[in-house]
Amino acid sequence: MRFLDALAGVLPSDVIVRDADVVAAHARDQAAWAPEGTALALVRARSAEQVRDVVALCAEHGVPVVPRGAGTGLSGGANAVDGCVLLALGGMDRVLEIDAAEQIAVVQPGVVNDRLREAVAEHGLWYPPDPASSPWSTIGGNAATNAGGVCCVKYGVTRDYVLGLQVVTGTGRLVRVGRRTRKGVAGYDLAGLFVGSEGTLGVITEVTVRLLPLPRGTPRTVVGAFGSLVAAGEAVAAVAASGIAPSALELVDRYCLRAVDDWKNMGLADLGDVLLLGRVDSGDEDEAALLQRCFDEAGAGWSTRSTDAEEAEALFAARRLAYPALERLGPVLTEDVCVPRGLVPRMLGRIEEHARIHGVHVANIAHAGDGNLHPLIVVPAGDEAARARAQAAFEAILDDAIALGGTVTGEHGVGLLKRRGMHAEVGEDVLELHRAVKAALDPAGILNPGKVI
Amino acid sequence: MRFLDALAGVLPSDVIVRDADVVAAHARDQAAWAPEGTALALVRARSAEQVRDVVALCAEHGVPVVPRGAGTGLSGGANAVDGCVLLALGGMDRVLEIDAAEQIAVVQPGVVNDRLREAVAEHGLWYPPDPASSPWSTIGGNAATNAGGVCCVKYGVTRDYVLGLQVVTGTGRLVRVGRRTRKGVAGYDLAGLFVGSEGTLGVITEVTVRLLPLPRGTPRTVVGAFGSLVAAGEAVAAVAASGIAPSALELVDRYCLRAVDDWKNMGLADLGDVLLLGRVDSGDEDEAALLQRCFDEAGAGWSTRSTDAEEAEALFAARRLAYPALERLGPVLTEDVCVPRGLVPRMLGRIEEHARIHGVHVANIAHAGDGNLHPLIVVPAGDEAARARAQAAFEAILDDAIALGGTVTGEHGVGLLKRRGMHAEVGEDVLELHRAVKAALDPAGILNPGKVI
Repeated sequence: MRFLDALAGVLPSDVIVRDADVVAAHARDQAAWAPEGTALALVRARSAEQVRDVVALCAEHGVPVVPRGAGTGLSGGANAVDGCVLLALGGMDRVLEIDAAEQIAVVQPGVVNDRLREAVAEHGLWYPPDPASSPWSTIGGNAATNAGGVCCVKYGVTRDYVLGLQVVTGTGRLVRVGRRTRKGVAGYDLAGLFVGSEGTLGVITEVTVRLLPLPRGTPRTVVGAFGSLVAAGEAVAAVAASGIAPSALELVDRYCLRAVDDWKNMGLADLGDVLLLGRVDSGDEDEAALLQRCFDEAGAGWSTRSTDAEEAEALFAARRLAYPALERLGPVLTEDVCVPRGLVPRMLGRIEEHARIHGVHVANIAHAGDGNLHPLIVVPAGDEAARARAQAAFEAILDDAIALGGTVTGEHGVGLLKRRGMHAEVGEDVLELHRAVKAALDPAGILNPGKVI
Repeated sequence: MRFLDALAGVLPSDVIVRDADVVAAHARDQAAWAPEGTALALVRARSAEQVRDVVALCAEHGVPVVPRGAGTGLSGGANAVDGCVLLALGGMDRVLEIDAAEQIAVVQPGVVNDRLREAVAEHGLWYPPDPASSPWSTIGGNAATNAGGVCCVKYGVTRDYVLGLQVVTGTGRLVRVGRRTRKGVAGYDLAGLFVGSEGTLGVITEVTVRLLPLPRGTPRTVVGAFGSLVAAGEAVAAVAASGIAPSALELVDRYCLRAVDDWKNMGLADLGDVLLLGRVDSGDEDEAALLQRCFDEAGAGWSTRSTDAEEAEALFAARRLAYPALERLGPVLTEDVCVPRGLVPRMLGRIEEHARIHGVHVANIAHAGDGNLHPLIVVPAGDEAARARAQAAFEAILDDAIALGGTVTGEHGVGLLKRRGMHAEVGEDVLELHRAVKAALDPAGILNPGKVI
C-alpha cells in the first residue's frame, strides 16, 4: 500500500506497529459504548518531528490521524476511525524543564498527570488539575480534552494552567503558540483554542504549564450524609449561595458506595444514602464550619468535620474508586452534564426521573460544587433492550441539562458520544463557526475526523 | 452614496452620525502615535440587532467596521481606517443580570469597568480585572483587548473571567459562545478566542463574567524605595522566587513620581528613585513580612509595611496618575512588554540602555510582579527628530523582550503599534494560523482590518 510504504520511508521501523492485535488494543478509549473503527497502523511517536512527519504525510495522502495519550477518555474521542493512523504520544514522556522562580513546567505530552505533580512537588510547586484518571492519564490528553477534576471547583481546569503549546497543525507544521510569561496578548489565544479541541485541530507535542505554590495549610474535610439526591443537591446550592469556596465538593450516591464496598469492603454504604465530601484548604476553621452548617441546614442526617488526613484520604479514595467499581458491574454509559450550581437539586431530580421513566439504573458521582454531574448508567453486559433504554435516558439527560442553561459536557469532552447533544446545545450557527475554524487549521480534514463536530 | 443610503435604511436615523467633527472625535484611541484614517460615519449602536445589521450591511458592501468602546486603548486598535464605519458600543451600557448564587453577571459591552465593580459589590461580589482605565474603559473593550491591571498578578486577566459572549461575526450573524456554567467543554473555546482579538474576529454585544466574593481581609501595603531600576527589578525577581503571592506588585520610577508631583503636588519624589508598591490580601502578616524582607535584601534604601488604607490609597493613586501625568508633558509612546519575572532586572537594564543609546527619556511604570513593564517614551510635541529616535528605541525594546523569552504586549494589545513586533515574536507560520482563523470568522475581511495581523 502506497501510504504505508511512504510511512515506512519517513519513520524508523520500530515506531510503526502493524500487528493487528496491538493496533486493535490501541483503537479505543474507556467510553464503553462508543463505536470504534479499524486503524491502518499504530505509530508510537518519540519526537515532535516524527509527529510532524506523520501528520504531513497523512495530509498528503488524505489519511485520518487519531492522536491518543493514555486512552482514559470517556467520550470516544481517541477511538479509531476506519483507515486511520493511531498516533500514540505516550512514549514522549519527559519532563523537560521545571522553573521554580517562574512557576512553570515544560513537559512532553506523554507525561502522566501524577508524575508531573510529583516532579513539581519536589520544588514546592503544585499542578492543580486532578482528573480522577490522574494516575494514568497524560498531560497531552488532559490538555486536548481540557480535563477537570476534584479541586477545579476552586482552582479551575486544565486550560487555566496551559500557558503555551507546541503543536502540529493539520498541514503538518510544527509551531509554538502561547507563551512562557504570566501575561501576553500578542495575537489570538491559539493555545486556548487547541486546549479542549480533542485532537481535531492539532496534535500537541509539548505543553508549558503554569504552577502554584504547594498549599501549606492543613485541609479540613467536611462530610454530610443525606437521605436523597435532591437533599444533597439543596446543600450544594446552599454552599454556592453562601459564597464560600471549598477546594472540593463531591457527591457520591448509594449505588456507588455499594459498588465500592462490594469491591473493597470499606463499609461506606453504612454512612448514608448520599454523601457530600467537602474540603476547605484556606486554613479557615470558620469556612469549614459554615460548610458544615450548609449541609446541616439542607437536612443532612449527620455531618462531621475534621483535619484527620487519613480519614479524608479514605473518603476521597471512595470517590475515585466509584467509577472503576461500577465498571465491574457492566458497561457504564458516563454522563458529564454541568448545570448552574443553584440548579443542581433540580437536575438531580430530573436524573432520578429519567432512571424511573426509562427503567435503568443510574448511579451518581458529581463534582457537585461546580454543578458538574456524572450520572452513570449501568447496564448488564449483553442486554440489548436495556442498552437501548440507557441510550434514550442518556440523551434525555443531555436535553434536560441544556434546558436548565447547562452544558452536555463539563469536562469529558464531546468525542463521539455527545455530538448530538453538543449540536443541540450550541445550535447551527455556532456549529458553523466550529466548522470554519476546523477547516482553517485542518484544511485536509484529517485530524480526528468525525469527532466533536 | 449607495452604502450610506443602505445604512440609513437599516438603522434609525438618530444612531447614525455623519457630522465630520463628531466622527473625527471618535476616530482614535489614546495611542498618541498611531495613525488614523477617515471614517465614513459613526454608528452609536443601541442593540445587538443594530450591530448585526450594520456588520451584515458592511460585509455585503465590503465596508470596514471599526468597533470601539471608550477609546482608552493604547495601541491604536480602535483607530479609524479609511472609509470605515466607526461602531460605538458605549451606549449599550446596561447591567442585564447579577446572579449572586452563581457568581456571574451579564452586561452589555458599554458598561464601564468601575460601574460593573460597584454593581456587583452591592451583592458582596467582585470583578477582579482592574486596568488603570477602569473609571472610563468598558467591559466590551476590556474583553476585546483581554485587559489586565494591578491585581492580575494574583487574580488573572480579563479572559480568566469571561465565561460567555454574544458576538456578531464577520458574516453578520449574532451568536452566543461560551457558557454560564462553571465548567464546560462542548466544542472549541470560541469565547476565549474572541477575547483579545481586538475586534478583528467579531463585535462583542454582551459579556457574561464570572465573579469572586469580595475580599474580606484587611490588605497590607508594603513599600520599598530603591536607588535604581535594576535594584527594584532584583527585588521583583526575589519575590517571584520566594513563592509568595502579592495581590499587587507595582513599580513607579522617579520620572513618573516627579510628573505626578508637578501635577498634584504630592511630594512623592522625596520617597526614593524607584518605588515598589506591594499589596498582600491574604490576611497573612507573615506573607507581608516576607515581601518586605525581599525588598530589603535586594537593597531597598527604606521599606515599610502597614494596614493604613488611606496611605495605601494615596500610593496606588500615584501609580494610576503616572500615565496621565506624563501625557501632560508630551505625546507618550507606551510600551507593554512582558518578560519572565526573574528577568525583570535584566529587561529594566536593557530599557535604560536603550534610553541612553537613542537619546530619549524613558519613564517606567510596571505591573512588575508579573513581569509586565510599561516603559513610557516621552517626546516634546513637534520634535520630529526625537520622535524618530523614540520609535527606534520602541522597536529595540520590543526585540529585547522577545530575545528574553517575553512578549511585545502583556495587556495592551497589538493594534497598530505592535504589528511588526508581534510578527517578529510569533513568526511566519503562527501568523499564517492567525490569518487562517481570521479568514474563517471574517471571510470578507471587514472587521477592524489592518489591526493585529
